[in-house]
Amino acid sequence: MTDLLIRNTRPMGGAPQDILIRDGRIATIGTGLAAEDVRVEDAAGAIAIPTLVDAHTHLDKTTWGMPWYTGRKGGALQDLIDNERNSRIPLGLDVHRQSMRHAIQLIENGTGHIRSHVDIDTDHGLSLLEGKLQTRDALKHGVEIQIVAFPQSGLMVRPGTYELLDEALAMGADVVGGLDPSSMDRDPKASLDAIFRLAQKHGKPIDIHLHEYGELGAFTLEEIIARTLAHGMQGLVGVSHCFCLGMPDPHRVGPLMDAVAKADIRIFTTGHPSAEVPSPQDMRAAGIKVGMGCDGIRDTWGPWGQPDMLHRARIVGMKNRMRRDDELELLLDVASRGGAEAMGLEAPGLVVGGPGDLTLVAGETLAHAVVEEAPRPLVVKRGRVVARSGKLVLPGVVMP
Amino acid sequence: MTDLLIRNTRPMGGAPQDILIRDGRIATIGTGLAAEDVRVEDAAGAIAIPTLVDAHTHLDKTTWGMPWYTGRKGGALQDLIDNERNSRIPLGLDVHRQSMRHAIQLIENGTGHIRSHVDIDTDHGLSLLEGKLQTRDALKHGVEIQIVAFPQSGLMVRPGTYELLDEALAMGADVVGGLDPSSMDRDPKASLDAIFRLAQKHGKPIDIHLHEYGELGAFTLEEIIARTLAHGMQGLVGVSHCFCLGMPDPHRVGPLMDAVAKADIRIFTTGHPSAEVPSPQDMRAAGIKVGMGCDGIRDTWGPWGQPDMLHRARIVGMKNRMRRDDELELLLDVASRGGAEAMGLEAPGLVVGGPGDLTLVAGETLAHAVVEEAPRPLVVKRGRVVARSGKLVLPGVVMP
Repeated sequence: MTDLLIRNTRPMGGAPQDILIRDGRIATIGTGLAAEDVRVEDAAGAIAIPTLVDAHTHLDKTTWGMPWYTGRKGGALQDLIDNERNSRIPLGLDVHRQSMRHAIQLIENGTGHIRSHVDIDTDHGLSLLEGKLQTRDALKHGVEIQIVAFPQSGLMVRPGTYELLDEALAMGADVVGGLDPSSMDRDPKASLDAIFRLAQKHGKPIDIHLHEYGELGAFTLEEIIARTLAHGMQGLVGVSHCFCLGMPDPHRVGPLMDAVAKADIRIFTTGHPSAEVPSPQDMRAAGIKVGMGCDGIRDTWGPWGQPDMLHRARIVGMKNRMRRDDELELLLDVASRGGAEAMGLEAPGLVVGGPGDLTLVAGETLAHAVVEEAPRPLVVKRGRVVARSGKLVLPGVVMP
Repeated sequence: MTDLLIRNTRPMGGAPQDILIRDGRIATIGTGLAAEDVRVEDAAGAIAIPTLVDAHTHLDKTTWGMPWYTGRKGGALQDLIDNERNSRIPLGLDVHRQSMRHAIQLIENGTGHIRSHVDIDTDHGLSLLEGKLQTRDALKHGVEIQIVAFPQSGLMVRPGTYELLDEALAMGADVVGGLDPSSMDRDPKASLDAIFRLAQKHGKPIDIHLHEYGELGAFTLEEIIARTLAHGMQGLVGVSHCFCLGMPDPHRVGPLMDAVAKADIRIFTTGHPSAEVPSPQDMRAAGIKVGMGCDGIRDTWGPWGQPDMLHRARIVGMKNRMRRDDELELLLDVASRGGAEAMGLEAPGLVVGGPGDLTLVAGETLAHAVVEEAPRPLVVKRGRVVARSGKLVLPGVVMP
């Protein structure tokens, strides 16, 4: 049943209201609504927000629920990539099992949409994608998962990867991924041409990891902007991390942000604590649609992170000097409605006619809820209660 | 009773041992120790570490337990300082009550030593110090609190503050504080001369907040180093934050760190997420004694933070790219034994003859415990159980 009446909730921290969801969409918001023929939940005054959105993660990489992993490395990005690729099988990192563990906790913490990158490389072929497709299907009533076919070990530098990406997109991956066309792929023109060719062929959007710093990142970003405009792919291209937009020079970054906004390229930030990161406030002010993600959680790369978008919001907020309530409200919007918008989804917020996806969260105000990483008593997906008091209540979910 | 036998604990994550504490000091570490005449606690395999140390905080500033504070400002340091000084009384920020709330949670989370800065200014006089002295006394069996007399609103720029600091040190403040002698006090020579004069007069150590970035901070730090050597105060001077040691130029920072180490100046970091910070790894490698602190927690300056040193360790670790287990072990040492050492306290770690201060922490390994912010089933201060399962069990503590 996807008809639901939630009584006594405070939409976006405002005055108490009832929210009626019918056929998976918000039918009425008001007071004293009649409860005929619908399941009723009492929110007891909790705040209602649109479901949280993890717009950048790698569900299958986590070691969550496994013994503590002691093999982490320091060093360059290439060392971390190689360590992971070589560790997956000896470590027994089962994609479907680990993705389920990660995604279920995201649901329990109020997440309704996930964009997850899955490694496509010539060692593993399409086996990792197969596991993640299983997870997407197993949890489809609880969370909508977009899968990015992601050449984690490089595209141009690993011949055979292009063909695997092509197959992955045919098999059901939703988005064409990319990785540092200059610094990792060493051939930005060929790398970007290949990514855009795949996107055009399959009619699918793009999401490129861009860790490149400073002027190198800016150069690659300019190439992404040029191709987005040339292919008429405005609104269909995303750039993840985009550390170059965190450069300290506003005279360089300002015009770049304007160009990103004009090409309607979406930026996905994880607020990386030890890197320069683009400011969500500045990006929003420039008109860029911004999403936020947890990125990897306790994986072979690093030990940190939690499968919880309010935890991530805290990291992003602290990183970007957000202190005031209005800044914390912007932060929460990026972690929820804004992330869905950046992913190209319908994202009107909690309005009549909009999707019946919402999360109840404790707290005095929206800002307080963010800072507290407040409990989430109820999570609703298209009118269906999918988690209650932090526990999944979705029927028929079998853990592998 | 301060005799205590803890059975089945894993000191520093090693093999299971018993730890016997007699007369407040560790008497024996071994297996199968006899339990005559002592209270016995079963650690059930939990890891034992030296108690955590919050080496830089402002206990009385927190709004914890009060309604959500909506009046936070953006802007420059001076705006934040002024907003706080003007808000304390209207907001009802009772020093003793708020310090108790903050300090008790620190104890419950396994903290055995705190260094807390108390504002001394011409608006509030010594009233804030009086409140904090009450807290120090009320909790003296649970945690040892060092109080820094801190000219938060400036020393040279607010005539009358010097005399108040002088009185504060006579009343029982333990450490002479200072604030940005160049950028805030606008007269580094006079400001530092005054601070060192007070230290010499009262025979007390120094701890200066140095937020100054880059070359300005380096200049001030050089002046601090020069005075430390000139007064023979090696080991008695601390610098908090010291963002200038986070400058990206290793050729500038390396020699500065060497000079800090040679003058045995201690550095207290909070791993500020949106500032350049000095690397704990690099400071340790240079031979600097380093402590870590939670700084302000949900105060009028900012909404973030938790009264928990493992939470802070996570922030510091993420900020400083710590990934490997050995890095996480260094991080935990800075958050516990190393912080006590930097504060000038006896800090041998968990050894026979050392202080009977320890915290039990769950987790597979030390690294795992840090990342998990793992539960702390028992906190012991000089052989006395002061917190159990995250709750204070110290008799005679009355909340104001």
